[in-house]
Amino acid sequence: MTSDAGPEPSLQDAALTSGASFWTVEGEGIAPFWLTDGPHGIRKQVGSPDHLGLGASEPATCFPPAVGLAQSWDPGLAAEVGAALGREAQALGVGVLLGPGVNLKRDPRGGRNFEYLSEDPVLTGTLAAAWVRGVQSEGVGTALKHFAGNEAEHDRMRASSDVDERPLREVYLRAFQRVVEDARPWTVMSAYNKVNGVPASEDPWLLTEVLRGEWGFEGAVVSDWGAVADRVAAVAAGLDLQMPGPDPDGDAGLLAAVAEGRLDPAALRRAARRVAELAARVAASRRPDAAFDVDGHHELARRVAAGCVVLLKNDGGVLPLAPASSVAVIGEFAELPRYQGGGSSHVTPTRVDVPLEELRSRLGDVRAARGFSTDGTGDADALRAEAVEVARAAQVAVLFVGLAARQESEGFDRESIELPADQLDLVRAVAAVQPRTVLVLSSGGVVRLAPVVDLVPAILDGALLGQAGGAALADVLVGAVNPSGKLAETVPQRLQDVPAYLDFPGEFSRHRYGEGLHVGHRWYDARGIDVTFPFGHGLSYTTFDVSGLALTAADEGITATITVTNTGDRAGREVVQFYVGVPGSAVQRPVRQLAGFAGVTLAPGESRQATALLRRADLAYWHPKAQRWVLEPAGYEVSAGVSSRDLRATATVRVEGDDVRLPVTAETTLGELMADPEAAAAMAPMLGALTGGSGVGSGEALGTDMARMIASIPLGRLDALRGAREGKRPADAPEDAR
Amino acid sequence: MTSDAGPEPSLQDAALTSGASFWTVEGEGIAPFWLTDGPHGIRKQVGSPDHLGLGASEPATCFPPAVGLAQSWDPGLAAEVGAALGREAQALGVGVLLGPGVNLKRDPRGGRNFEYLSEDPVLTGTLAAAWVRGVQSEGVGTALKHFAGNEAEHDRMRASSDVDERPLREVYLRAFQRVVEDARPWTVMSAYNKVNGVPASEDPWLLTEVLRGEWGFEGAVVSDWGAVADRVAAVAAGLDLQMPGPDPDGDAGLLAAVAEGRLDPAALRRAARRVAELAARVAASRRPDAAFDVDGHHELARRVAAGCVVLLKNDGGVLPLAPASSVAVIGEFAELPRYQGGGSSHVTPTRVDVPLEELRSRLGDVRAARGFSTDGTGDADALRAEAVEVARAAQVAVLFVGLAARQESEGFDRESIELPADQLDLVRAVAAVQPRTVLVLSSGGVVRLAPVVDLVPAILDGALLGQAGGAALADVLVGAVNPSGKLAETVPQRLQDVPAYLDFPGEFSRHRYGEGLHVGHRWYDARGIDVTFPFGHGLSYTTFDVSGLALTAADEGITATITVTNTGDRAGREVVQFYVGVPGSAVQRPVRQLAGFAGVTLAPGESRQATALLRRADLAYWHPKAQRWVLEPAGYEVSAGVSSRDLRATATVRVEGDDVRLPVTAETTLGELMADPEAAAAMAPMLGALTGGSGVGSGEALGTDMARMIASIPLGRLDALRGAREGKRPADAPEDAR
Repeated sequence: MTSDAGPEPSLQDAALTSGASFWTVEGEGIAPFWLTDGPHGIRKQVGSPDHLGLGASEPATCFPPAVGLAQSWDPGLAAEVGAALGREAQALGVGVLLGPGVNLKRDPRGGRNFEYLSEDPVLTGTLAAAWVRGVQSEGVGTALKHFAGNEAEHDRMRASSDVDERPLREVYLRAFQRVVEDARPWTVMSAYNKVNGVPASEDPWLLTEVLRGEWGFEGAVVSDWGAVADRVAAVAAGLDLQMPGPDPDGDAGLLAAVAEGRLDPAALRRAARRVAELAARVAASRRPDAAFDVDGHHELARRVAAGCVVLLKNDGGVLPLAPASSVAVIGEFAELPRYQGGGSSHVTPTRVDVPLEELRSRLGDVRAARGFSTDGTGDADALRAEAVEVARAAQVAVLFVGLAARQESEGFDRESIELPADQLDLVRAVAAVQPRTVLVLSSGGVVRLAPVVDLVPAILDGALLGQAGGAALADVLVGAVNPSGKLAETVPQRLQDVPAYLDFPGEFSRHRYGEGLHVGHRWYDARGIDVTFPFGHGLSYTTFDVSGLALTAADEGITATITVTNTGDRAGREVVQFYVGVPGSAVQRPVRQLAGFAGVTLAPGESRQATALLRRADLAYWHPKAQRWVLEPAGYEVSAGVSSRDLRATATVRVEGDDVRLPVTAETTLGELMADPEAAAAMAPMLGALTGGSGVGSGEALGTDMARMIASIPLGRLDALRGAREGKRPADAPEDAR
Repeated sequence: MTSDAGPEPSLQDAALTSGASFWTVEGEGIAPFWLTDGPHGIRKQVGSPDHLGLGASEPATCFPPAVGLAQSWDPGLAAEVGAALGREAQALGVGVLLGPGVNLKRDPRGGRNFEYLSEDPVLTGTLAAAWVRGVQSEGVGTALKHFAGNEAEHDRMRASSDVDERPLREVYLRAFQRVVEDARPWTVMSAYNKVNGVPASEDPWLLTEVLRGEWGFEGAVVSDWGAVADRVAAVAAGLDLQMPGPDPDGDAGLLAAVAEGRLDPAALRRAARRVAELAARVAASRRPDAAFDVDGHHELARRVAAGCVVLLKNDGGVLPLAPASSVAVIGEFAELPRYQGGGSSHVTPTRVDVPLEELRSRLGDVRAARGFSTDGTGDADALRAEAVEVARAAQVAVLFVGLAARQESEGFDRESIELPADQLDLVRAVAAVQPRTVLVLSSGGVVRLAPVVDLVPAILDGALLGQAGGAALADVLVGAVNPSGKLAETVPQRLQDVPAYLDFPGEFSRHRYGEGLHVGHRWYDARGIDVTFPFGHGLSYTTFDVSGLALTAADEGITATITVTNTGDRAGREVVQFYVGVPGSAVQRPVRQLAGFAGVTLAPGESRQATALLRRADLAYWHPKAQRWVLEPAGYEVSAGVSSRDLRATATVRVEGDDVRLPVTAETTLGELMADPEAAAAMAPMLGALTGGSGVGSGEALGTDMARMIASIPLGRLDALRGAREGKRPADAPEDAR
């Protein structure tokens, strides 16, 4: 880049490309600034910004973590949360907020799934882009992370995520690409892991060719904390800021590398410039007098949380609870709510709503029982027996189950997706005496529900809902809020059914993404595997009719429109999901993949259109031989559904795609050539000669169809196979050999 | 190699490294010889050995193709077939027979599966080694093929089989390794395809480092016909003989490459020497007056074929047929038997036994109906109606169904594993009127049986049985032979269940082996997927008790012994299969993998021991970081069964394995280091300091277990993370940022 031509880089330039402390960047000629976790609340460390970043943090609103937020399927809520986080960051003096996390929930065991949005790149990318726009609208930067392939925690600082080109492009990078192109995050955070053997923080293809060259990213690339093993390689690849710091030896090493010709000085100048530009951007956007409305943000957190609750099941209309019911509230999580995950994103909340208290304030007759303990205290049998008695005596039981914080966290993956055995026992025992039992789930990762789904009439999935989750759950339970959340991840029947069951999280520092394109719902649909609850599933206290699908194709993609009618007696929100397949595609495709969605909020009896643009970019596939995106000319079959398995309408639209012709080379096969009618006519005599005059397609002596058998021969190999014609005649055949 | 030092190679040397014609090798100073297909019969082309090798061939015995032979699970029969083939090769003047094919049946759609033995490397390797010993015992060479990764036909001359290191080593190469080490084939044939991006015919790792360096192969490497795209690269990699030939331009190119320093002259001399050694070996073993016993070989083919028939089901003892029964024999294959596959292995048989005639000769009352047609002639409804009437009038119906030759062949893969729809209709119609219906299956690849398995009481799987299959099937049907075959490949319930369903046969010339180690039965067991008939399944007309498993471990492996008793009233053979798992293994393992098997033939009431050595090499795993085989010190759980899902006894034996310690480097993680108690004690103070004195394992402020969270940090990364401690103090923290 000519703009980075200039004098030899200085030590100050080099120092700019590393942090000044664990959380800060400063340097000559720039305004210092903070970068701070995390995606659902500000973790601004109290006191010294050093050590491993393990200290206590200042209080901040804990909004629903990504696992919860994604269940809203609502970019509007994501944007509202982002803007509120931006205000809190300004108030706490934070210049860049370290999120969003857009790695995919490739496997339910992923330890950091609670920080990630979904199993699908379109859902993830849409929500994350909205969140980024929200944060940055308040003059605070974001860090799109972890770029890329950080779908497991196991051995995360060494392991290589080995992903084939199409799934890497079409699934894992798609979420990042959408956010970069739509929302222009100020920074992108490089991942700890390697991608196909190359450290993500030192990968010129990833950090420069794809991110900047193809996607037009113009911000700074920041490393994950401690991700850089080789600063010279990192700067050369396009990494601008290694965190944390300081790293005077590394700074000196960069200058030495320049002096020795191992590092282009322009690369170092460029990195320093980008950090300086970031600092200037932070400084220009600072609002030194900013404060945030603690109560207002808690109310927002509550409203968002309520929008994230998924009503998985509600047989017989057990929910909402009648205000006059006598209700048994059971489970430790009713008193000690589980609302966020462990690790770098862990927030010190401004307050915490307790479900039991919230229900007591809304219902006349509430009796509580702990039911189980997550810390090993108490006698499981006694706790269960007490809970059973409380449940038996009530008209309804609300049973809070889930995973304790220590069972899932950043830093390690789960080995099981089961609910703890004592909780399963409790569900069985309570359900046995109380047919009107409502399960409320709290966990950062999916838990297997097959053992309990048929035991109870109603299930609410709260995932992790942040500090106001207790009030939000109560709102939904009593019907003050009509639930509208949808699953962002499939709930499988068994761990053995999940796509990456046999290669997650890898071993020997290699992690093969063996399922290829078939992540999440794509796998279950392609393999025809039954699930407990499908991706996109979520019920309401009202009912919706979804019909009248119309499609129009244009340059930017397919516009899908469908009419949604609230056929029940409550206001509510439905999220229509548009899945696309290409029957008869020339390339491998998911049976159906999410290409867009639209939420509509309707009064009883009201009808509205739900419309989504199914982007050209999400219909295209990556062509590994042409090294480009290709929109296949084909009929695209669009299904509109209220889950990935509750499809209400299907229609097909023809899309004029790209004409991709590879040049004819020695590697072109006969079959490829003969697919062109003109070439076939021209080749026929030669092929006849080649097959000894017996004619292509005869092959009688071999008992097969020669045309099919020779179709895979590359043109460049024909000479070798024809060589014999120029060679020995029968008369020359070795006599002795007979 | 010093032995290949010497003068500059000559044009004669270069010419030796390519064939002299399509099927022959000759050259200055060597005795000319023929190489000829194929694994189940000699395809010695009549007349000129040129063209694409498509001409008619001399009559030879067509023994059961590999798909059938493997169902014998009988190395003794494989050796007998091999020896007979060796005699025929001698009689026909063939020096090297192009087989065995030991690629695995990775997917039921593989077009060449009929030429391959099984889905398992131990079964495949054991049978192939016996076959090689048999052929070579007659002074005829073999060509172990297709080395390696040629598990699909689609795009076979360009596609790369992308296989991770452990499955490549432990599954796909294991079969080759066993045959090379046990049976020392004279030649190995390099495959058309690439392996992990490198053409198999030009891969020094495969052809030299592994094959010769690790396995000690001392023969010649021959290319598959037309596999070599770059002769210089091929010779450099260790390929000795490109076929076919001649290729004078290529010969000259080799010399030019030597002259220009692009090819080590020793490599070319070495290749020429190996071809000359092969020629000398052929010449020394030639039996110019050899002839073969056409009738005797047909009888052998019949005996072998009978041993290959699998009795899949026999409810109510429908089989064997009573001699006096009136039997309806239905299906085109009863008159036009399907007994071999299409392509290079296609043999001109010396005669063909027709099932219908064979049954007529054994049974008193046989009426026949064609039932369906495979060539589109005839009216399907009328054929079916006629068959139904014949079946209704008989006491038993024997219904021959399967795949026609054009539905499966070398050169392309299948897209479906269904029986043709008209045959399914026929089975339903016949079974509806005749409860005593016996299905007889003929096909080169597995067909889905779920639609018919519950409709009929008995099923015989004949796969492809060679020219005497008709008599063999009749022998089994009437009970002259008691069936003892076992499935060498799982029969899945649905194509969607098969391991490679979503990535077979690949696209864009890349073929990802995404299921890793979990090929065949390993997949179904690991994922807990029901199958129609499991690997290793096969019934008998008698019954066996299998009990009393005893295990002893020694340096060479685990010796497993179990007592088998014939508890029925007929002599019969049972094949006991020993499957091994390592519960709690430190590495990924199949739940169970075949490690050995033993067949025992017993008179009624007789008991004998079945014993197998479960070799150390088959218990070990390949350690990608240590780059060596490792026998894990562990309890090995051995299950003895009569199929992979009918396990009769299980026991565990402790095996003292290898102690593998990797050196401690900057890439060693804290967790790996702390696994050593002494290191853990030494590190504790440092880690305490690192975590700011709060103590490892607290991590309270992050809501997680710090010990787990930091376990994955490599030692070399600690400095970067500790950098902040040496850096700014709180007093230096940027003021402005607050």
